[in-house]
Amino acid sequence: MNATPLSSTDRTRLGRVNERGLTDRSNLYEMLDGGLVCHLGVVVDGSPRVIPTGYGRDGDTLYIHGSTGARSLIAGQSQEVCVTVTHLDGLVLARSLFHHSMNYRSAIIFGVPRLVTDPDEKLAGLRAVTEQLAPGQWDVARLPTRKELAGTAVLALSLEEASVKIRTGPPSDEDEDYALDIWAGVVPVRQVFDAPVSDPRLRPGIPVPSHVTDRPTPARAAK
Amino acid sequence: MNATPLSSTDRTRLGRVNERGLTDRSNLYEMLDGGLVCHLGVVVDGSPRVIPTGYGRDGDTLYIHGSTGARSLIAGQSQEVCVTVTHLDGLVLARSLFHHSMNYRSAIIFGVPRLVTDPDEKLAGLRAVTEQLAPGQWDVARLPTRKELAGTAVLALSLEEASVKIRTGPPSDEDEDYALDIWAGVVPVRQVFDAPVSDPRLRPGIPVPSHVTDRPTPARAAK
Repeated sequence: MNATPLSSTDRTRLGRVNERGLTDRSNLYEMLDGGLVCHLGVVVDGSPRVIPTGYGRDGDTLYIHGSTGARSLIAGQSQEVCVTVTHLDGLVLARSLFHHSMNYRSAIIFGVPRLVTDPDEKLAGLRAVTEQLAPGQWDVARLPTRKELAGTAVLALSLEEASVKIRTGPPSDEDEDYALDIWAGVVPVRQVFDAPVSDPRLRPGIPVPSHVTDRPTPARAAK
Repeated sequence: MNATPLSSTDRTRLGRVNERGLTDRSNLYEMLDGGLVCHLGVVVDGSPRVIPTGYGRDGDTLYIHGSTGARSLIAGQSQEVCVTVTHLDGLVLARSLFHHSMNYRSAIIFGVPRLVTDPDEKLAGLRAVTEQLAPGQWDVARLPTRKELAGTAVLALSLEEASVKIRTGPPSDEDEDYALDIWAGVVPVRQVFDAPVSDPRLRPGIPVPSHVTDRPTPARAAK
């Protein structure tokens, strides 16, 4: 467990949710490592664009794969981006509409991404992205050709400026509302994997590998 | 089914994923109505910020609730924002690392949001946001007081400029790779609700209401 506190700049103290902010780097790692999709924000011609894409982490570097939304990724070079990873953990149903909320964990990272050009780091970055998507695949699937590598953009983003936010637990109603005859509680939400579906074009006799069948379903937030 | 085509501007044709673009407004509605969290992108001091938050739809207007990330929402007034809703439907494991991908549905909306000031529309917007989170709650929970309403910002965003993108189906490998002795297929991913957890402070004798217990789990993409 790495106890280095997260950098807290003005903009990572996000207004009203500040009380939900934590400053524990291990929380950041856990949120990132447990996710599958990030939302990458870039500015293009002064306007924001938010694009879902895959990612992976290696130490204090986040790698983002350039195949989806490539144009926006390229536009993001040498300018700042924002990467947000969100886990929805529950719907918070309060006695009052005003206090309805969600239980969630989110990580927000700011930084100027670096286009990875070193071949070894590019492979390491792609490995991180692949293993995030499907742990174990890097060692069994066909490695990229030189041409495929050239056609793939990998961006590296430092985790130096990041913040994490968590909301857990039951609703927080107004004192007088606890006497109301209204149900309140949390509907837990989680992401699950279903049984793998083999490619219809799969050659006969190839079983689903154990690293795919035995993969644990994504974890819920710690209680 | 509303067949109005989505507006397609240059920036909603997002580079390499253009072939995945659809122009059917009913697809847009379905993606938005089936989601729980959107990622709101705004520009602050020239830098992007991406914030997860709740939303709701009423016709061709998306309503965004201002309690989370309020400062960024306010900064977003009279300037353009980008709202993205993403459903992750599957992990696409190909024979080659290069063709690993995800099955997903996403909606991206651009526009200048309008701060809702009309009291009736504000209630309608909050109703849309609440019913998106938990259908049926608007009719049972305590309505907002005047003070609570005043403390809540609601933004309205037209769905005029939007695009939807879908990837479904098995991996698309290189022709020669189909002969490889490597498993390929899709690991389906979906979001599920677990059994509701009553607030520890709930008054005795209040059952979980049927609109909560009987809520269907979020839908998977159509095959």
